[in-house]
Amino acid sequence: MSKACVIIIGNEVLSGRTQDANLAFLGERLNEIGVRVAEARVIADDTDVIIATVNECRARYDYVFTTGGIGPTHDDITSAAIARAFGVELYRDQKIVDLFLQHYKPEELNEERLKMCDFPIGASLIENPISKAPGYQVENVFVLAGVPVIMQAMYEALKDRLVGGRPMHSRTVIAYTGEGVLAKGLGAVQLVHSGVEIGSYPFFRQGRLGSALVVRGADEDALEAATKAVRDLVEGLGVEHHDELST
Amino acid sequence: MSKACVIIIGNEVLSGRTQDANLAFLGERLNEIGVRVAEARVIADDTDVIIATVNECRARYDYVFTTGGIGPTHDDITSAAIARAFGVELYRDQKIVDLFLQHYKPEELNEERLKMCDFPIGASLIENPISKAPGYQVENVFVLAGVPVIMQAMYEALKDRLVGGRPMHSRTVIAYTGEGVLAKGLGAVQLVHSGVEIGSYPFFRQGRLGSALVVRGADEDALEAATKAVRDLVEGLGVEHHDELST
Repeated sequence: MSKACVIIIGNEVLSGRTQDANLAFLGERLNEIGVRVAEARVIADDTDVIIATVNECRARYDYVFTTGGIGPTHDDITSAAIARAFGVELYRDQKIVDLFLQHYKPEELNEERLKMCDFPIGASLIENPISKAPGYQVENVFVLAGVPVIMQAMYEALKDRLVGGRPMHSRTVIAYTGEGVLAKGLGAVQLVHSGVEIGSYPFFRQGRLGSALVVRGADEDALEAATKAVRDLVEGLGVEHHDELST
Repeated sequence: MSKACVIIIGNEVLSGRTQDANLAFLGERLNEIGVRVAEARVIADDTDVIIATVNECRARYDYVFTTGGIGPTHDDITSAAIARAFGVELYRDQKIVDLFLQHYKPEELNEERLKMCDFPIGASLIENPISKAPGYQVENVFVLAGVPVIMQAMYEALKDRLVGGRPMHSRTVIAYTGEGVLAKGLGAVQLVHSGVEIGSYPFFRQGRLGSALVVRGADEDALEAATKAVRDLVEGLGVEHHDELST
């Protein structure tokens, strides 16, 4: 199974002003094609930090996805940093300039907007059907917008470039009791069913305490067998439970 | 200004099943006491990864906050990993066992629940008024629960231990136009007002395109002057705008 790292670039996420939504989207969608997000980092709008993080992560993972910092303003520094991370210069892409001229009057196409036509030499562009300014790929690094609707459209445009593996599936059993009641039995089920991953996540929902028991695996038969064992455990303890719809 | 790193431990966040809410909370609340979250990492439930990440980050930042993995189930491996990161053993805290005995019948206090009474030797405990099982501090590392309501209560219990600096304040001007229109002027304002940070974040809200222009800084006078310059810029371009309530 391929492994990926998501790098979220943006002071606004670190300050708590903006709630990131891109990691959850990428985690789910990559999972569907058998690419596992193994790590994510949220980093500041700082050129040296971006360069160091991208270079560390692209060496360690099959794929790296960055989000944020490719717009026209002074705080959009991702492309300059990516170019430096790969030791190349930026070039201005005339095809994208021409594309912009279909959407902006010439007097609107100022130098700041033209910055969005600059890419690291060797980049393979990723179409942006929403606001036109493309994302791009350099080797195993995919550079995407931070605005979720645009990032998602870019993902649709790039996903055929990815080589995944068997997708992970999951089943979730909701049990209305604390984890401490289930922990021993659950650990035993995990030991027997070592081909799947069993996670336990406590929750408070509408005033009720419960545990979401999530079984994940690529093999459907192993998944069903382990999920049945979890259901039997909960049933045997006389705990109210139900299955949750999942992928 | 002190710098902090948030380490979010949990496969469920990487898979997209769970949307993290702890980073935004910590980013905002630490900011209020002059501690800046400079980086965040989301990592898997993997002992070696937890050890390596905690050791790297505790050397690099003034404070490290981990969330997740301190419950009673087999996938709760944070405390064992933290102990190994610091090269110490776990000990069972009798005061917490006694506390648990006020909340559980003796037969309910199984070995799995007792796991939540185990802490790295030398840890300073952090009260959990919600579900009793404490978080703890080892040196500059604060180990907190993953469930947001519990994590937040633990933060209230630990915050007086932190030494911060001047809090960062922010002002936000909402301008109903694309970033490309504002970029040149905004870059000029940033150059003149170098004591503050100006961020520009595009949005689509109720079908309207706009830019949130966020000015951040510790000095109120510098903040007001820069915000006025941003307002004047937008006004001068004839763009509809309004201030947004902020901290």
